Amino acid sequence: MQIFFNYNWMVRKEWYQLCEQLSEEDLLKPRVGGMGSILRTFFHIIDVEWSWIRMLEGKPDIQENFDDYKSLKEIRALDERYHSEVSAFVRDWDASKENQILHLTLEDGKDVSHTWGEVVRHIIAHEIHHIGQLSIWVREMEIKPVSANVIERGLSTYSNKN
Amino acid sequence: MQIFFNYNWMVRKEWYQLCEQLSEEDLLKPRVGGMGSILRTFFHIIDVEWSWIRMLEGKPDIQENFDDYKSLKEIRALDERYHSEVSAFVRDWDASKENQILHLTLEDGKDVSHTWGEVVRHIIAHEIHHIGQLSIWVREMEIKPVSANVIERGLSTYSNKN
Repeated sequence: MQIFFNYNWMVRKEWYQLCEQLSEEDLLKPRVGGMGSILRTFFHIIDVEWSWIRMLEGKPDIQENFDDYKSLKEIRALDERYHSEVSAFVRDWDASKENQILHLTLEDGKDVSHTWGEVVRHIIAHEIHHIGQLSIWVREMEIKPVSANVIERGLSTYSNKN
Repeated sequence: MQIFFNYNWMVRKEWYQLCEQLSEEDLLKPRVGGMGSILRTFFHIIDVEWSWIRMLEGKPDIQENFDDYKSLKEIRALDERYHSEVSAFVRDWDASKENQILHLTLEDGKDVSHTWGEVVRHIIAHEIHHIGQLSIWVREMEIKPVSANVIERGLSTYSNKN
């Protein structure tokens, strides 16, 4: 599980670097699909990751407002602010947590349950999916997207040692 | 690991169903980014998944030609043809395989090594990334994409039992 989170965080950083070349207008420009703009996509990725992990930890969710994070600099600062909590949770993840149950009551009053294993995979896939959307949007600007490869990033224990 | 593969296969099937409403022209229409068309994206997802698993199994890769699979029906048939081999590999996956090493010589003569764990995660993320791209393309046609949610699909052992 940790490998996938490390992958996402590495790719996300590379995307921030790529976005340094874009104007604020490009970063906020309304686009078709996904979260509707590049910066809002980053905001959503960061928020969803943090919020689900807060729920697993039984902590209250604090809904930030995108209006307060409308620059790459502010998005990176938000990311950094949440990251220590998120990364501590991921570091401490082990297989024993896989089948713990998160019970939630949705806004419509419906009760739902998810295993923790489903929730962490949901967070992982959520980011990869949205990053795929960004790759289309930057191609429309004739910019080569960040590689989505998992291999050749030195992510496994073996790679780190060799 | 199995949960992520099951997720991808479930989502892929739902995408095929969604694509039944599209004309062959829409499915083959050149689009910006990714693999350049909807059908070619499916072909690429199926091919990449199968080819990497063949490499892990030490079997020769057989490169199919997209020209032979230019309809949704043919894509589904190719998927089905490869699926038994792919799903047998995934079914037999266990943690002991995580750090086995795949040695490859690239076309430029360079030797590279990947852990099997990296390779299976590469396959998983690869599909999710490309599906994210499809979601933009169908929104451009004013069609609601397939949900990318991992939760609420009954994917975990707990969900399957409850």
